[in-house]
Amino acid sequence: MFRKEIKVLDCTVRDGGLINQYQFRDDFVHACYRAACEAGVDYFEIGKKLEVSDAYPRDQWGKWNFCDDDEIKRCIDSCDAQTRPAMTVMYDVGRVDVSKLKPADQSPIDMVRTACYVADVDKGIDLVRRTKDLGYETTLNVMAPSAAIEVDLVQALGEINEADEVDYLYLVDSYGAFYSEQITAYIELYRKYAPKRPLGFHGHNNQQLAFSNTQQAIIDGVNLLDATINGIGRGAGNCNLELLLNFLKNPKFDVRPIYRVIQEQFVPLREEIEWGFNDIYGISGYLNQHPRAAMKLRANPEERDRCYDFYVESRNLDG
Amino acid sequence: MFRKEIKVLDCTVRDGGLINQYQFRDDFVHACYRAACEAGVDYFEIGKKLEVSDAYPRDQWGKWNFCDDDEIKRCIDSCDAQTRPAMTVMYDVGRVDVSKLKPADQSPIDMVRTACYVADVDKGIDLVRRTKDLGYETTLNVMAPSAAIEVDLVQALGEINEADEVDYLYLVDSYGAFYSEQITAYIELYRKYAPKRPLGFHGHNNQQLAFSNTQQAIIDGVNLLDATINGIGRGAGNCNLELLLNFLKNPKFDVRPIYRVIQEQFVPLREEIEWGFNDIYGISGYLNQHPRAAMKLRANPEERDRCYDFYVESRNLDG
Repeated sequence: MFRKEIKVLDCTVRDGGLINQYQFRDDFVHACYRAACEAGVDYFEIGKKLEVSDAYPRDQWGKWNFCDDDEIKRCIDSCDAQTRPAMTVMYDVGRVDVSKLKPADQSPIDMVRTACYVADVDKGIDLVRRTKDLGYETTLNVMAPSAAIEVDLVQALGEINEADEVDYLYLVDSYGAFYSEQITAYIELYRKYAPKRPLGFHGHNNQQLAFSNTQQAIIDGVNLLDATINGIGRGAGNCNLELLLNFLKNPKFDVRPIYRVIQEQFVPLREEIEWGFNDIYGISGYLNQHPRAAMKLRANPEERDRCYDFYVESRNLDG
Repeated sequence: MFRKEIKVLDCTVRDGGLINQYQFRDDFVHACYRAACEAGVDYFEIGKKLEVSDAYPRDQWGKWNFCDDDEIKRCIDSCDAQTRPAMTVMYDVGRVDVSKLKPADQSPIDMVRTACYVADVDKGIDLVRRTKDLGYETTLNVMAPSAAIEVDLVQALGEINEADEVDYLYLVDSYGAFYSEQITAYIELYRKYAPKRPLGFHGHNNQQLAFSNTQQAIIDGVNLLDATINGIGRGAGNCNLELLLNFLKNPKFDVRPIYRVIQEQFVPLREEIEWGFNDIYGISGYLNQHPRAAMKLRANPEERDRCYDFYVESRNLDG
């Protein structure tokens, strides 16, 4: 598949940091950034930009939960690449202070992505407007649409359609629940009710479908695609960047730096933290559930592989 | 997705046995068979039916490489299920002796699947004819079409189209190389040149696409689908049966016995043998290569995770 409009967003550090509360070493984050530069990806999301608070004390959360400008600059300066991805951070509705965000021309950040649930879409749009006013490129990532009541989702899409400050509207498969035919159906829905908004896609790999659903989004015309190195990310993880770059035939991409950083950084990291498909996440994805119960089970050495018990208990809770 | 014509073939033991030379314990094979009975799958492929030879001495290969009738009967008798899948074995062109096959009405086998490369399709058709003459349901599984020269493949499809003894013609993604759009293109090719043959599909999971490609085959009208419990199979393995049964909404299927046998039998087995996606198989799939080089690398503890080196060396060999 080649389409020159397609852009790739590497959210390795931001989504991977959900596994370990952003406790990555600097050399790991800098190596990921260098790989993204050399691979030619279009955006690099380095973390969240939350406010320090009682819920998010700085000493318990790694620096990429807060993304101070000087830390981002240190990362950028660690690499002498000629071409660089646009630098991206994520905003969570209710956990940020936009009044502290500098204008884009005084900041190392190029794009701010705002994440919210359908119920908070007005707050999300407000944040997008205020970040756009400061000069940033913007996205609005509406989480868990697979679990939203459709009339609410349709209303939210209509509001987003009127918000010209939203540069990209994301279809997000938060629970890893979508099959390809549902990707197509939701993209049609988003196009019908938010026709003015270019679309992005962010998958999760609960059912081994993050990469194939990303392909389906491409086939259906989506041009901004999230992926992570080695598929790292919360729970079952995300679309593997290296598989996606192989699929995209654009000569601007070079997959070799991605395989190099996997070999050098991710192989040892896999001994420390877990991500990727397993039976438990497969069940939570199929049941269209938030992965928290599955993640809790995986953290319990006695229970982590008891997929039959998890399936039966999860279905009983349904009934 | 629900379509009443869809049938599922569990080739757990046959494809999984390629990992360990069919050295499964009886209680494992019997547990798989019981799970398949209780889950309501349509076919259960218990192994290959090769001739003992210098290349295949009985003492080095497990019993499910030879599938003696009395061993199959012992498996069947180990389970008291009311409904049972049709019992299936695989024939490899050049390694079997069809003159020793009993007529179907004197055998515990219901279906014989013949596997061959495009170059051997005449030999494959001959074997199918002879097994059909003995009363068996038949398939012809043409391996590695992704690596075949299209004019040869088209000629083979034309011959298969005229062989009415072939009950199902299989599209086989031997190298795990296909993307969904290629599945669609090959199914169109098979339909164009072998319109009289109902189709089956057998995927491999090198690029995390075995399940999604099986979905694509379903969307494109294929009605006989291979899968294995927990995705077990050579190299990156196959389409996970449990994910597929979740996807298929047919009430005749019950996924719970599959999750139970995973919990009881496959979780401990994963400590003994390896299958499933990893970076090395992802590369061999992308490069449309036989997995033997990748399997050799995975067997070397020093090299098994050196994906960058494998990628660069594989590309250099290409050039």
